[in-house]
Order: sequence, then structure tokens, then C-alpha cells
Amino acid sequence: MNYDDSNPFARILRGELPCIKVAENNAALAFMDLMPQADGHLLVVPKEPVAEIFELSDASLVASMRMTQKLAIAVRAALHPDGVFIGQFNGAAAGQTVRHVHFHLIPRWEGQPLNMHARDVADTDTLEALAKRIRAHWRAD
Amino acid sequence: MNYDDSNPFARILRGELPCIKVAENNAALAFMDLMPQADGHLLVVPKEPVAEIFELSDASLVASMRMTQKLAIAVRAALHPDGVFIGQFNGAAAGQTVRHVHFHLIPRWEGQPLNMHARDVADTDTLEALAKRIRAHWRAD
Repeated sequence: MNYDDSNPFARILRGELPCIKVAENNAALAFMDLMPQADGHLLVVPKEPVAEIFELSDASLVASMRMTQKLAIAVRAALHPDGVFIGQFNGAAAGQTVRHVHFHLIPRWEGQPLNMHARDVADTDTLEALAKRIRAHWRAD
Repeated sequence: MNYDDSNPFARILRGELPCIKVAENNAALAFMDLMPQADGHLLVVPKEPVAEIFELSDASLVASMRMTQKLAIAVRAALHPDGVFIGQFNGAAAGQTVRHVHFHLIPRWEGQPLNMHARDVADTDTLEALAKRIRAHWRAD
């Protein structure tokens, strides 16, 4: 699958667009989803320029999943959700909206349906406050 | 989270219940979901007895994701879906129905909504035929 480096995650990785960062290492960056489906919705984005998981290198796959697992633990400690959804979508038919491979980490609470994906932009102060709470439980490698 | 080894995936791993196997190695087993949300719906189940991703060992996490990625490639080659969804649910609030950690791999086609999760049991011959097509594209380590 062709990779177009004008996609918003490529621009975030190059520092051309801002993000509310939660974690970063050599291989991956995690930040708050600006159009969250629930409070604390995070994205883990490998730095490798690849559109879908099929082409992702083993090193990026492993680094991204390790970060995702550690963030799931941090989110659970910070926000006390009833559940945690982890999702990785390839192709528009599977719900992918940005053509750079990424992992969704979405806290879930009983009786609270998800917001529609990629519809409403959240308040920045709210996202910053959530990020701060999650970062407080993040343990870097 | 307490782990109850009477759950159906633990029973499959012990050989007490059958499954339509697609791939297996020392760390993980992949088989057809009996109540598929779409044709080719697979489950990747680490052999480690853990209910949720928070407690999963690094070795199991890495092995499961490597198998999931390779199966995504195999499913794409075998079934030519428009997209591939990968999901890992922790807690009933996040959609988890079996309390042994597992990864869903669900092919998606444009205009075909998902079947409801865990509702209708599929025809065994249909599942066997899909598994055979996927296995033909599976490359063991």
C-alpha cells in the first residue's frame, strides 16, 4: 500500500502539527486522540512510515505493542475504567481514517457508549488534564 | 484479575474442547471464531493463563502480535478483504466475553456490517473451508 507522508500523523511525527504527547521512545509516539471516542482515548503511532500493519517491521510492531500494553496499565491506574479496548484498523472498510498505522487504546465504562469516531474535537484543556493523569502512571523503558 | 481456567479458551488449549486451528507455536494458538462477526474471523490466543492484557508477559505479548500480523497477511492473501480489523478487549465493558486474553482478527468488506458478536454459531464446514484457505497462506516461523 502506498504511503502518503502528508497524512496528519506523519506531520505530527515531523513536528509540523502539535500533539498532546503521553509517551515517546525511539520507535513510537503516543498522544491523545483529538476526537476521542471516550475520555483517555490514546493513539500509539510507530515512527516507521507505513500505512497498514501488513508492512510494519517486526521492530516497530513489537515496540508499538509494548508501549500499548504499558499505556493500558497506566490508563487503568489513572482513570479506573471498567474496561480497555485496543484496536488497530487497516483500510477504510475496517475504520481506518489516517493512513499511517496506529493503535487505538480506548478506556470503556459500563453504560457509556462510544462517541462517534473522528467527529467532535475535544477541548484541549480537558485532553491536557487527562494526559497529565496518564503520564503520572507511565513508566518509561 | 483472577483467572478461571474453566473458560472455553483454556479448555481449547488443554484439548478438552475442539477448535478449527489455523496456526500454532509454543506461545500462541490461532483458530476460527465459532460465532464470527465476518467471514474469516480469527482469534489469536496466547497460551499463558491470563485474563487481560495488563498481566500478559512480554514474551506472550510479542509472540501473539507476531502471529496476529502474520495471520493478517495470510487472511489478506486468502480472502482479499477491503480491510482488516484487529481488536483486543479487556473487561466486559470493552466487549470481552471470554476471560482469557485474546486478539480478534476480522476481515472487513465495504458495505458489509459486522455480525453481532458471540450470537450465531457458524456452520462448521464453512469455517473449515475458510480455515483451509487461510492456512494455505500461513508461513510458520
